[in-house]
Amino acid sequence: MAIEVQAYRTLLAPPARATERESAVTGATIPRRANLISTMAHLHLRGAQSRSELVAGLNLSRSGIGSLIGELIDRGIAEDAGVDRQPSPGRPSLVVRLNARRAVAIAVEIGPGEVAVASVGLGGVLFDLVRQPMPDRAAVPEVVEAIRLLVEDQIDRLPPDATPVGVGVAVAGLVNNDGLLLHAPNLGWGHTDLRSVLRTALPSGLTVTVGNESTLATIGEYLRGSLRGVDNGLLISGNAGVGGGAVVNGRLLWGANGLAAEVGHMKVQPGGAACGCGGKGCWETVIGLPAILRASGLTDLPDGTDPIEALADGAAAGNAEVLAALDDAGRWVATGLGNLLNVLNPTRIVFGGRLGRLLPHLRTTVEEEMGRQALLGPLVECDIVEPHLGKDATLIGASEQVLWHVLTHPEDLLVDDAASA
Amino acid sequence: MAIEVQAYRTLLAPPARATERESAVTGATIPRRANLISTMAHLHLRGAQSRSELVAGLNLSRSGIGSLIGELIDRGIAEDAGVDRQPSPGRPSLVVRLNARRAVAIAVEIGPGEVAVASVGLGGVLFDLVRQPMPDRAAVPEVVEAIRLLVEDQIDRLPPDATPVGVGVAVAGLVNNDGLLLHAPNLGWGHTDLRSVLRTALPSGLTVTVGNESTLATIGEYLRGSLRGVDNGLLISGNAGVGGGAVVNGRLLWGANGLAAEVGHMKVQPGGAACGCGGKGCWETVIGLPAILRASGLTDLPDGTDPIEALADGAAAGNAEVLAALDDAGRWVATGLGNLLNVLNPTRIVFGGRLGRLLPHLRTTVEEEMGRQALLGPLVECDIVEPHLGKDATLIGASEQVLWHVLTHPEDLLVDDAASA
Repeated sequence: MAIEVQAYRTLLAPPARATERESAVTGATIPRRANLISTMAHLHLRGAQSRSELVAGLNLSRSGIGSLIGELIDRGIAEDAGVDRQPSPGRPSLVVRLNARRAVAIAVEIGPGEVAVASVGLGGVLFDLVRQPMPDRAAVPEVVEAIRLLVEDQIDRLPPDATPVGVGVAVAGLVNNDGLLLHAPNLGWGHTDLRSVLRTALPSGLTVTVGNESTLATIGEYLRGSLRGVDNGLLISGNAGVGGGAVVNGRLLWGANGLAAEVGHMKVQPGGAACGCGGKGCWETVIGLPAILRASGLTDLPDGTDPIEALADGAAAGNAEVLAALDDAGRWVATGLGNLLNVLNPTRIVFGGRLGRLLPHLRTTVEEEMGRQALLGPLVECDIVEPHLGKDATLIGASEQVLWHVLTHPEDLLVDDAASA
Repeated sequence: MAIEVQAYRTLLAPPARATERESAVTGATIPRRANLISTMAHLHLRGAQSRSELVAGLNLSRSGIGSLIGELIDRGIAEDAGVDRQPSPGRPSLVVRLNARRAVAIAVEIGPGEVAVASVGLGGVLFDLVRQPMPDRAAVPEVVEAIRLLVEDQIDRLPPDATPVGVGVAVAGLVNNDGLLLHAPNLGWGHTDLRSVLRTALPSGLTVTVGNESTLATIGEYLRGSLRGVDNGLLISGNAGVGGGAVVNGRLLWGANGLAAEVGHMKVQPGGAACGCGGKGCWETVIGLPAILRASGLTDLPDGTDPIEALADGAAAGNAEVLAALDDAGRWVATGLGNLLNVLNPTRIVFGGRLGRLLPHLRTTVEEEMGRQALLGPLVECDIVEPHLGKDATLIGASEQVLWHVLTHPEDLLVDDAASA
């Protein structure tokens, strides 16, 4: 359990900052602060826990846990949640959970044709989630204005005693360690200091963090979904573009600049189709949604039709053109996944994004071809699964980046507490 | 510096065992043992150090360092090495270094057509290194017998007071976390429990570890070569086959089974040439030495000609066929490196193996094409360099895996000491 908490702390920090943050919480010089953080992180990731579970999970004494919980309850960070539902021999153990309202993250997702906003409190409690269609390739000011209204609306609808603490933004584009958006081909945006723009537009007092949508989806799935407990895992987010994220040695694969796991732009077909990135033959040109729709002859769908559902329906109905297109797509999916299997040797691949819906139709081809094409295919165990959090993985991950900061900097909670007292 | 030592400890441990080893050396319960390990690791990686440098580097008191050094000297693990050559104000600071003879690793490299053996003592001191040609695709017993003779010869030629402690074997094939060789296409070997075979054949009392040659070359370059201090780096080892290794977040990329970074088998040319792995269009089919030689028309070289030198000479002489082949190879190198740049976002790529010799002839094409082909090419800084340790990187890495075990298990040194006293 201590491992899980440590992984949580280090997972979210880009490498340049990890050392400072890790050393700030090792507890070598400030053990009580470190123990408070461990207790909060444990409750945050595991939900309500009895005191006995905390004693066992955190390897602290019963009186030590009692004192820590006492302080957290006094400060309004934790709250009693009744007694253990499965009493073990001896006296009943009181259950405690974090007070979700004490710190609420507003998560924002900016994708092609859609903006989504959610509010998520301590412990991962989802208060609300709204998705709103946007015009294709809407410009930055238009999207920022939509976000401003949605965020203010989310805040208005929070319980009266809830405290919004920050906005975590996920965007379908390249975001470096400094939170700068370098390029978002599928949004039609170039270099944008999205964090500054949003900081100005949004209510003051809220921190703003910006990250890549697939990176944040990976964080969501690692903490609360299909990658939980997976030390070497991979997430593919397939939509019009194809993004990815990876966990390596129990830590997120950030790369030196925070730009790692841009898997959609692996070249798999030399001299192939032109890609939005300016290259040719990128993986996303053969497995992205537009390519599959073209190959399926489904380019002229009636307004309001979900193209993914049209593909799934076509496959279920035995449409030969759709089946052939999915078979072809499955082989290309296997080529890219096989390369990544050889490079990263993960035990689990989460196949998400809107293409995840097609996994049941692709799975047989993908698994057969990976066994054939990838050197490691026949040698290792690696399952391919759908994201447990579905399309909300990105928003959950964006909220975690905000809540992680709060949990690892408890003085923020204490300062807020004093100021509002 | 503490970070470097910690990185050394965790770099070498496959993930399954990392946790146990890390917790065994955190020093939470056994600080003196942890301090002894830190001191030895520091001296091992940095060479001779003055007491003042140790005080600063290890963040310990002067008297604490004095006591640790005293114990190490008493036990024959460290030795005095005069006084600081650059005296700072105040009294001169005595210099200490590890006693290289106190623990000597025998490193073995098994490649196509060659076996190499070296002896390396604490502090990375190279005593001897011998390379011996072998028949192409020699069988396991023949190679093991050659290794036995070479290892015994190395041990015979060590200084009389030197203590060989283990044999670290690097092999050009897939080696999993359990040290099993799963497949070595370029040696013509299938599944082989090389460790058991060598343990039986070699002098008793020596531990035997087995690893992949490119993984071990990466360890060598990370600890003592071009990847030193690089938290996100990549090594390519190009020969007949193409292997790789990566450092991610300051730790080696092992993958779940220890099989990660099999970069030579990324598919870059669908339906391309057949590869030794059974697949088609693998990266090594287009950038491996045989492919470049074929394209250069250099397939019928006189006996004793080094093909790499023939290619370099041809390029220097302006041979059009060779230049065209290298240009083509450079573009393929860029395709694969570009994919890996997009996936791993390293700051440095070490281009080694025998193909490293061709880097001066490939560099311009590779860098131009990576800027064009790789999404991250124009966005990040990543240099491409030759391995600092040259073709010895693998042997150095193999020795480090043995010495690392000795340094992190100092009781082995103490037990040996008691037994021999």
